[in-house]
Amino acid sequence: MPRYKLTIAYDGTDYSGWQVQPGHKTVQGEIERAFLTFTGARVVVHGSGRTDRGVHAAGQVAHVDIEPGRTCREILKTLNALLANDIRVLKVGKARSDFHARRCAVSKEYRYHIWDGEVLPPAIRLYRHQVKRRLDIAEMQAAAVLLEGRRDFASFTANPNRKVESTIRHLISLKVKRRGDEVVITAKSDGFLYKMVRSLAGFLIRVGEGAVPSSAALCILESGTRTARVPTAPPEGLFLWRVTYPRSAADA
Amino acid sequence: MPRYKLTIAYDGTDYSGWQVQPGHKTVQGEIERAFLTFTGARVVVHGSGRTDRGVHAAGQVAHVDIEPGRTCREILKTLNALLANDIRVLKVGKARSDFHARRCAVSKEYRYHIWDGEVLPPAIRLYRHQVKRRLDIAEMQAAAVLLEGRRDFASFTANPNRKVESTIRHLISLKVKRRGDEVVITAKSDGFLYKMVRSLAGFLIRVGEGAVPSSAALCILESGTRTARVPTAPPEGLFLWRVTYPRSAADA
Repeated sequence: MPRYKLTIAYDGTDYSGWQVQPGHKTVQGEIERAFLTFTGARVVVHGSGRTDRGVHAAGQVAHVDIEPGRTCREILKTLNALLANDIRVLKVGKARSDFHARRCAVSKEYRYHIWDGEVLPPAIRLYRHQVKRRLDIAEMQAAAVLLEGRRDFASFTANPNRKVESTIRHLISLKVKRRGDEVVITAKSDGFLYKMVRSLAGFLIRVGEGAVPSSAALCILESGTRTARVPTAPPEGLFLWRVTYPRSAADA
Repeated sequence: MPRYKLTIAYDGTDYSGWQVQPGHKTVQGEIERAFLTFTGARVVVHGSGRTDRGVHAAGQVAHVDIEPGRTCREILKTLNALLANDIRVLKVGKARSDFHARRCAVSKEYRYHIWDGEVLPPAIRLYRHQVKRRLDIAEMQAAAVLLEGRRDFASFTANPNRKVESTIRHLISLKVKRRGDEVVITAKSDGFLYKMVRSLAGFLIRVGEGAVPSSAALCILESGTRTARVPTAPPEGLFLWRVTYPRSAADA
């Protein structure tokens, strides 16, 4: 069966995350249900990775195998007609038979959006984490630089289990930028641990608030232990922004 | 009692419009309820005008009279703490005792947001009217120019009652701009008739779709009669953007 690569955006507000869970409304579950209606067959939608309850995506990627005879355009239009409008299929392309949305991904980019102005505009209220104090961007940037590189991020993940999985990741870049009353943290890595971006964001927010010095980043990394200096920032600010593949892998 | 000027933004999706109606959740009703909790007294929130069910605001203006002894900052913070986050008080200022949000307004600006791209991004789905065909902006602009000026807009309002109210208004400007897959209609007037902006938008969309020539604008104005060439565009694309007052009126 031909394989297709889907690029998907969603508002995670009303979903229990990406991954199918019995009795819960999930993004993967909704897309699989749309495929079932569309093709009459059970189709597994393989995402590049999970996103947690309430986390959004601007560019989640998934692959599916479906019976031949349908154009990419037909798939895109039909899925979008069947899905609620808080999930949108942005792109459908043919993929090589060995393309795998999770295994072939070479890097992922997440963005965490913070609002530190006094009044959060209603139209973006579902997509920003509002903090009460003005954040010190220079301090956050100083901390971010210390976290970049190939490191053991055990202290920036929830429930690490180093017996099962290495907690070493290459954090390719961690940037902090201000745009008016908005602060955006952009994290790019070859792979993220469970709740790693929200832990990085939680720590950087504490630094920006002046509660923790930027230099603490190194001690925290070295300790390998999660502490109160690394809270998990709430899901509504987080977007899975982009998943990158080798040029050759994606397109058939 | 001192008078205050409030500037208010709201997402109209979950409200039956601005104006208080028994048994319905309205923006005015919610703000009056917040004032009741805050001050212990019934406060009437006088808006610059109504907005219909589902219409949004980026800069609605209202005035209130409340017991002395509260700072503007205190009013702003307390109201925002009491209100749901789809209504935000953006600004509170002292106003002259003769300031009146509706009567003193010299002009209003509305913006109507249309999406004519194939896929509407989830994060803005509540704030755009999606149309299926690519709109011809040049034609829409040609029609808009014909509608500007002091004219009888009887054919661009729902249920005109010329015995009660003149349907002549000064449409100061009507602009159409494209930004990528988005088309924004900006309408500024000394006052708008009931559903006038959505009627202008509905007509301009038909022109942009090629269903009606731009030159029809003049015949429609002259006819004074609403026809199928002037549908009412849906509320989700519409924002009350700004209300303008004489410099002297607003600030005490």
